[in-house]
Amino acid sequence: MNEHLEKLREKMRERGIDMYVVPTSDFHESEYVGEHFACRKYITGFTGSAGTAVVTMDEAGLWTDGRYFVQASKQLEGSGVTLRKMGVEGVPTILEYIRDAFPEGGKLGFDGRVINELLGEELETAVSGKHGTVEYGEDLVGMIWEDRPPLSREPVWILDEKYCGKSAAEKISNLRHAMREAGADVHVLTALDDIVWLLNIRGNDVPCNPVVLSYLAVTDSQVLFFVQEEVLNDEVKAYLAELDVTVMPYDSIYEYVKTFRNQMVMVEKSRINYALCHNLDSSCSIIDRMNPTAVKAVKNETEMENIRRAHIKDGVAVTKYIYWLKKNIGKIPMDEMSVADRLEEFRKEQEGYLGPSFSTISAYGPNAAMCHYSATEESKAVLEPRGLYLIDSGGQYYEGTTDITRTIVLGELTAEEKEHFTLTVMSMLRLGNVKFLHGCRGLNLDYVAREVFWQRGLNFDHGTGHGVGYLLNVHERPNGIRWKIVPERQDSGVLEEGMLTSDEPGIYIESSHGIRTENLILCRKAEKTEYGQFMRFEFVTFVPIDLDAIDKSVMRQEDVDMLNAYHKEVYEKISPYLTKEEADWLKEYTRAI
Amino acid sequence: MNEHLEKLREKMRERGIDMYVVPTSDFHESEYVGEHFACRKYITGFTGSAGTAVVTMDEAGLWTDGRYFVQASKQLEGSGVTLRKMGVEGVPTILEYIRDAFPEGGKLGFDGRVINELLGEELETAVSGKHGTVEYGEDLVGMIWEDRPPLSREPVWILDEKYCGKSAAEKISNLRHAMREAGADVHVLTALDDIVWLLNIRGNDVPCNPVVLSYLAVTDSQVLFFVQEEVLNDEVKAYLAELDVTVMPYDSIYEYVKTFRNQMVMVEKSRINYALCHNLDSSCSIIDRMNPTAVKAVKNETEMENIRRAHIKDGVAVTKYIYWLKKNIGKIPMDEMSVADRLEEFRKEQEGYLGPSFSTISAYGPNAAMCHYSATEESKAVLEPRGLYLIDSGGQYYEGTTDITRTIVLGELTAEEKEHFTLTVMSMLRLGNVKFLHGCRGLNLDYVAREVFWQRGLNFDHGTGHGVGYLLNVHERPNGIRWKIVPERQDSGVLEEGMLTSDEPGIYIESSHGIRTENLILCRKAEKTEYGQFMRFEFVTFVPIDLDAIDKSVMRQEDVDMLNAYHKEVYEKISPYLTKEEADWLKEYTRAI
Repeated sequence: MNEHLEKLREKMRERGIDMYVVPTSDFHESEYVGEHFACRKYITGFTGSAGTAVVTMDEAGLWTDGRYFVQASKQLEGSGVTLRKMGVEGVPTILEYIRDAFPEGGKLGFDGRVINELLGEELETAVSGKHGTVEYGEDLVGMIWEDRPPLSREPVWILDEKYCGKSAAEKISNLRHAMREAGADVHVLTALDDIVWLLNIRGNDVPCNPVVLSYLAVTDSQVLFFVQEEVLNDEVKAYLAELDVTVMPYDSIYEYVKTFRNQMVMVEKSRINYALCHNLDSSCSIIDRMNPTAVKAVKNETEMENIRRAHIKDGVAVTKYIYWLKKNIGKIPMDEMSVADRLEEFRKEQEGYLGPSFSTISAYGPNAAMCHYSATEESKAVLEPRGLYLIDSGGQYYEGTTDITRTIVLGELTAEEKEHFTLTVMSMLRLGNVKFLHGCRGLNLDYVAREVFWQRGLNFDHGTGHGVGYLLNVHERPNGIRWKIVPERQDSGVLEEGMLTSDEPGIYIESSHGIRTENLILCRKAEKTEYGQFMRFEFVTFVPIDLDAIDKSVMRQEDVDMLNAYHKEVYEKISPYLTKEEADWLKEYTRAI
Repeated sequence: MNEHLEKLREKMRERGIDMYVVPTSDFHESEYVGEHFACRKYITGFTGSAGTAVVTMDEAGLWTDGRYFVQASKQLEGSGVTLRKMGVEGVPTILEYIRDAFPEGGKLGFDGRVINELLGEELETAVSGKHGTVEYGEDLVGMIWEDRPPLSREPVWILDEKYCGKSAAEKISNLRHAMREAGADVHVLTALDDIVWLLNIRGNDVPCNPVVLSYLAVTDSQVLFFVQEEVLNDEVKAYLAELDVTVMPYDSIYEYVKTFRNQMVMVEKSRINYALCHNLDSSCSIIDRMNPTAVKAVKNETEMENIRRAHIKDGVAVTKYIYWLKKNIGKIPMDEMSVADRLEEFRKEQEGYLGPSFSTISAYGPNAAMCHYSATEESKAVLEPRGLYLIDSGGQYYEGTTDITRTIVLGELTAEEKEHFTLTVMSMLRLGNVKFLHGCRGLNLDYVAREVFWQRGLNFDHGTGHGVGYLLNVHERPNGIRWKIVPERQDSGVLEEGMLTSDEPGIYIESSHGIRTENLILCRKAEKTEYGQFMRFEFVTFVPIDLDAIDKSVMRQEDVDMLNAYHKEVYEKISPYLTKEEADWLKEYTRAI
């Protein structure tokens, strides 16, 4: 018996709603959401980071993906909620389920603020086949949720131009230029990373993402910033006033957009919520295009220089950590959580470190074979002086965002572990050393990373790389490296100079071991010839790759040369910041092989 | 003074047409067109294979691409037609020109049978900005063209099932299944290769393409074949009758489609002409999707087996030719046209050879640096015993269509020529030996072929590969290998077992040399592992690669191994069909290096 579900059904009954959809989202289509927005968890009891609930009077389903099948089936036991395994043959998608189960002439409900416009349009179409209607104006879960955590209200701070390299005034001017080109009278922006990038501010309202819960509306003469006023101190208020930015109450955007008449409104349908779009007067027209602020993926010279600095600091912290780990394994007690804490301490020693850029994956032995493993107090494994240990972590610094994975040798390895480790290193280095004509997308280059695996009938079931923000979200479009076309990810853009992308091939053998090696790569111009502008990548991550797991016999001489060249640079850049003991160790662990 | 142009303007004036568009097309969106359809050539005097004329009362422009700038500017001299160089900065596209030059409230004219629906819709949109209208019902050039060559009327013949592997009845049944799935009442098919593939017939109405000028309409109970009746002999008529195919006059399709009421009409807008679509009653709805017959790209087992046979025959002809060429160069007179004729003779010696699959490119020395070079009696070069000679040619056989390029050493080479030659061979072999997961497209694999060039700041400015039909058009979608996304080419489909694609990297150094090496590759399943179905390519082309131009120092050992393995197979498959003298030579020219 699920009390929350029954209360929700009561609210639905009062309103004649036959089916209610509860996604995992905030009002801004953020990838991660704060506790205030955990409606789906509240209703179903399932705590995973991804999933959508669909509730009718006599059924409730939770759709989630393969990462969470085990966890969800445990947590949903006895909850009255049926697990719907996404991607499994025979399991209907949410839209298929709705088309099938929705009653003729029925009413579909959802909170229009947590469903994006594109998805909302698909839901409309799904119920229109049954002559159904949509009601999006009320948050029924919010109505029944007692003790709901409040909206995050972390203080806003200004990011100095020495870090971001371009004034907010200039960015706003460029945005207005793009609006004019598109024929837009007003642009409504709800993506939090886009908003804080544009205004050169940061906050802390989404875990690991230094963003500010807010909306923005830009016209040729105004910038309206809809934000919880208490997060702004006097300095920030003065800064915004100087910028000609008008501060408005966070929620008032919904009433504000209702006032538009005959306006050409530029929005990005996949990034704006349904409620905002549907509050527009019918005299307005929507121009649907990628937010011009997506240009933030192209880092400027100042940002590039800072990113290099941030990665030296982060590299020093991670190198010290690896030294500590390899020196102390078997001598002092270590578990997956305690060692992750130790790395956090090393990072905190670095000047300008602000916090983690995502939840650390700290996984020993077979646990590392689960790509999205997250250690808990109950499940954490104890590290032993044998096998491989994987740590995928990153930091937020004033000088940028880092994301690095290393797999570390704790003791004896099998030949297969060594071969697999060597393949991921070859894969990562080959991709990082590629040269290509301008115009290429990650789609064109992903094969370079997959080749060594595919030749052996192996593969890794995740993208090879994602864009990385500047002191912002660790996942950023439109750059990315994958071989399949996945339109909704929007990560197949042309690779431009200044884009920062991860390069993180891996291999995962169930119940045995998991290996991933990740550097960040900055896209740079190479030579221009009569055939066009060539491009290349620059490594910005400098942390040794564990030579104890390298099987040189698997490598081509070019692979060996790339590894040696990389290690030479690691030593040169990192050793000045180490103790004598650490530096001596690093010398040995970056030796040419 | 251009008399044809003036007569066209007279017709335009009589009808109040302000602007008239004359493309290079037939009624079927064929890539190549017969003489009957050479309206653009008739009006402008420009004889190139690609170009569109736009005529107003006081202007006439011809849009063509870089291949034809030199030729067009010569041929247009004094014609009153302005050359519009496509792709050159500052030159408006046709649509931009129309949006700019079209008079307010004007009338745009074109023959709706030679403009596809998609382009027609774009033209509509372009003139709608000026409140203009479109008139598509008359072929004004046809009205003024005296002595216009008639429509081609080559006899139709039946392709035995031992060649095509599947009965027309089964193909039609599959098509009807696809129509039901799409909810279509009727499917109108105008792509000539699709029609003859579906009916298991062939003809000869487009140069090098064994197709039949015709249209097809399929309903759940009828197949209507609109064709010039005189091309059908009694045997073919009986065959069609047996298939329940009703023969209708070629032109009558335009009246036939007018009779549809409340029908769901399935067409592919980019492959059907504007007139056919616009003859539909407004009660009908269009379902726009790729013709289900595009599945012909996936060759069946019988076709695959035949394709291998055709390529042995073709390989024997080309190998004999290379032997003859290398043996006789410098001893007997040779020019680009005479040697091409000699190759045609070798092909004619092969049983089941029907004719060339495209116009042979036979290019010596610097001429080979022009990708689309075509020798003429006036321009042809004499072959000398030095440098490189390129020949790109193919044949139509009952057992399939071939397409092969070899670059042949006629005498001394520079070090650069050898390096470039070796790079194209490495490039071709690496792509042909790739292994990949099912789901890959040419987009994902093109880098494999480009890598050796891009590493050196080089490139070739054409796709790496195109799909190849079965005893059909040498260019066939939806498979292809290129790195840029070019939606209108529709050649980025997922690579499926049975698809036949060319693998033809090259390098072109202006005024110096041009090199291309081309094999056809058949997509096959490799092993299936827990990671999915792996795929590979099988070479079907077996002709030696000239070892006289190989610089082994450029190659990796893997490249050498691939070349040796390929040559071993060439010798095994081809030598049994050669004279002793030829076989001895082939032994030497396929030796392991």
